[in-house]
Amino acid sequence: MPHERILSIQSHVVFGYVGGKAAVFPLQCLGYNVDVINTVNFSNHSGYGRMGGTKTTATELDAMFGALQQNGLLMSNRLLTGYIPGAEALFAVERIANKLKKEEQCLIYLLDPVMGDAGKLYVAPDVIPVYRRMLPLASIITPNWFEVEVLTEVSIKDMASLQQALRILHAKYHVPNVVISSIPLKPWLLAALPPPILPPISSEESEHLFCLASSTNGAGEDPGCPHPSRVHAACVPLLPGYFSGVGDLFSALVLAHFHPHISNQSSSPSSTTTPIDPVEQRSQSPRPPPKLTSSLTPLSYAASLALTKTHAILSKTYEQALSLPEDERQPSDDELDAKDLMRKVKRMRGRELALVEGQDIIRGIGLNADAVRWMGEWDAFWES
Amino acid sequence: MPHERILSIQSHVVFGYVGGKAAVFPLQCLGYNVDVINTVNFSNHSGYGRMGGTKTTATELDAMFGALQQNGLLMSNRLLTGYIPGAEALFAVERIANKLKKEEQCLIYLLDPVMGDAGKLYVAPDVIPVYRRMLPLASIITPNWFEVEVLTEVSIKDMASLQQALRILHAKYHVPNVVISSIPLKPWLLAALPPPILPPISSEESEHLFCLASSTNGAGEDPGCPHPSRVHAACVPLLPGYFSGVGDLFSALVLAHFHPHISNQSSSPSSTTTPIDPVEQRSQSPRPPPKLTSSLTPLSYAASLALTKTHAILSKTYEQALSLPEDERQPSDDELDAKDLMRKVKRMRGRELALVEGQDIIRGIGLNADAVRWMGEWDAFWES
Repeated sequence: MPHERILSIQSHVVFGYVGGKAAVFPLQCLGYNVDVINTVNFSNHSGYGRMGGTKTTATELDAMFGALQQNGLLMSNRLLTGYIPGAEALFAVERIANKLKKEEQCLIYLLDPVMGDAGKLYVAPDVIPVYRRMLPLASIITPNWFEVEVLTEVSIKDMASLQQALRILHAKYHVPNVVISSIPLKPWLLAALPPPILPPISSEESEHLFCLASSTNGAGEDPGCPHPSRVHAACVPLLPGYFSGVGDLFSALVLAHFHPHISNQSSSPSSTTTPIDPVEQRSQSPRPPPKLTSSLTPLSYAASLALTKTHAILSKTYEQALSLPEDERQPSDDELDAKDLMRKVKRMRGRELALVEGQDIIRGIGLNADAVRWMGEWDAFWES
Repeated sequence: MPHERILSIQSHVVFGYVGGKAAVFPLQCLGYNVDVINTVNFSNHSGYGRMGGTKTTATELDAMFGALQQNGLLMSNRLLTGYIPGAEALFAVERIANKLKKEEQCLIYLLDPVMGDAGKLYVAPDVIPVYRRMLPLASIITPNWFEVEVLTEVSIKDMASLQQALRILHAKYHVPNVVISSIPLKPWLLAALPPPILPPISSEESEHLFCLASSTNGAGEDPGCPHPSRVHAACVPLLPGYFSGVGDLFSALVLAHFHPHISNQSSSPSSTTTPIDPVEQRSQSPRPPPKLTSSLTPLSYAASLALTKTHAILSKTYEQALSLPEDERQPSDDELDAKDLMRKVKRMRGRELALVEGQDIIRGIGLNADAVRWMGEWDAFWES
């Protein structure tokens, strides 16, 4: 068991699995003690159309942080932040992140800049500059495609703009580790991908999502290293339908499986050795096969396990949803959904992540190295 | 995995394991989907002396309950309620309990009437009449010694008064299942206990606590049954020091392991057969040895497993606390504690339940029938 402790700051819903409800149980299953700050207390996620509850105010957050500090209970060496609905609350989180970083130099902070998806913001726009200011505090960020565009103000439409966005995150905002999950496999991206990373030939564009992990060595620009970062990537089959909380689960698993210390033995990212994960060892999860051992970074190791487990949980959820009565799984249809609110609610309810049913997946029980979706190194990323 | 769902309504603390933090993770480990209502959001439990955060108002609770109901998300067939700080909030919980009971006839409701301990109330006194009114809704209650006295207005000082208190809970308040844990082994109790239930001769009075489970057949007074209930009991070694959240963990485990349906095959409590626990089977937990099979009730089966696992978690916590540096485990001393607030805080911090570290205990991994503290039947309870 790792003697590690995570402070998790995100939303709480009574029913279902998004935010903290999607993150905390998996982290506990993987052996972490988790201190849990709820940034909202809502009945359910907003996708249901109706919800009840309240947002935690900045004053309330400060009161909790203040008492934790007074009592010497800010003992976490890891920090995970997710959905924070407004700038005032985010200021409070920024203060606590600064405080933790000051006290614990080796703080591992996974910042998920939850702001929106597919071109639509679902937080107040005044959080955007605060997130930009917070980026240098983060060890890892896990934005989606849209959030990368919002943070960097780069519209990503080809390899050059993707490189530019990553360069901004690494160089301007000093984020050592960036994972962008769920990238649509646009033609320009498919054309640039090296064969080992391409999805199987038989499958079509729409059936896969692309996940990219980009790591610098964490110590800033390395003059001996020709590129801004090492990039790993994988294509993951896309399941039909929209499932909430997937990003929250994925981020939690990336943090859980991220073990940077081994790589610190070497100063250059290119000589980074594979991290040995005490949690994995304990729960009998696999080590990467020898041919991959030298090519994985701590980030791509963590993201590979997170991708594998998240996809397995999603598959289980999808199967469970398929076994529901037909009227509980009507496809999305804005017109019909508007006429009958319960139509949407039933669909949402059936698509809540099967985290409890799939806890053995989370724990890595029976997971062999062959079954892990190891990310491949994209050597020529910065040259393409 | 059971397709069962629990609505848990209790306190939330950021740091440590009391209330929902002590109950939800174990329930999830045992395969339950848990809907989680936080009655407070505090930084830590009150034993630390200082805390920050807020109580959830009745209006906020109603807003969450209302949205859950509107969205068809009140799907739980089990209900667990714990610490609710005031009467207004408790009214809201009473309304939701009534609603669930109406919709789900077979609702299993474990009501832990959290009010105080060792002669001291730690909720507003106006909750007492509300709890009395709610008792008939409950399937199981898990009061401590003091809470039994408060609810029944009987001062328990001998067998007659203990019988009277239980009679009031079963007959006047129609509670079918009562578990009283952590009863001090007073001389009059020791004198009344049948030998199989007595603690080992070598041990002294102060080193054991007594736990009692009393079940009627749930269908009200049974004219064919000579006694108001069947009583089971066990003595459990007491660990030095005070640990918070133990009652919350115990109650959650009683609910998790309670499977009444098997016993419904028989109409009289005296012919109750041993429940088969799907969770136990899955997690390879033991069935009771054949000689006990006929004597256990669903309640004493659940309480036996709950006692066993709670005690094992406590032992693990105690060992972890012993391994801390000396200044982190200074014994309680009101005078010294008042002079140095951190003295108390450090002790409290070191005594937080080792739930994450002990999750295999919760799951029952490797637990053999021999290692379970099976409660013994106290046949002559009502005659003594």
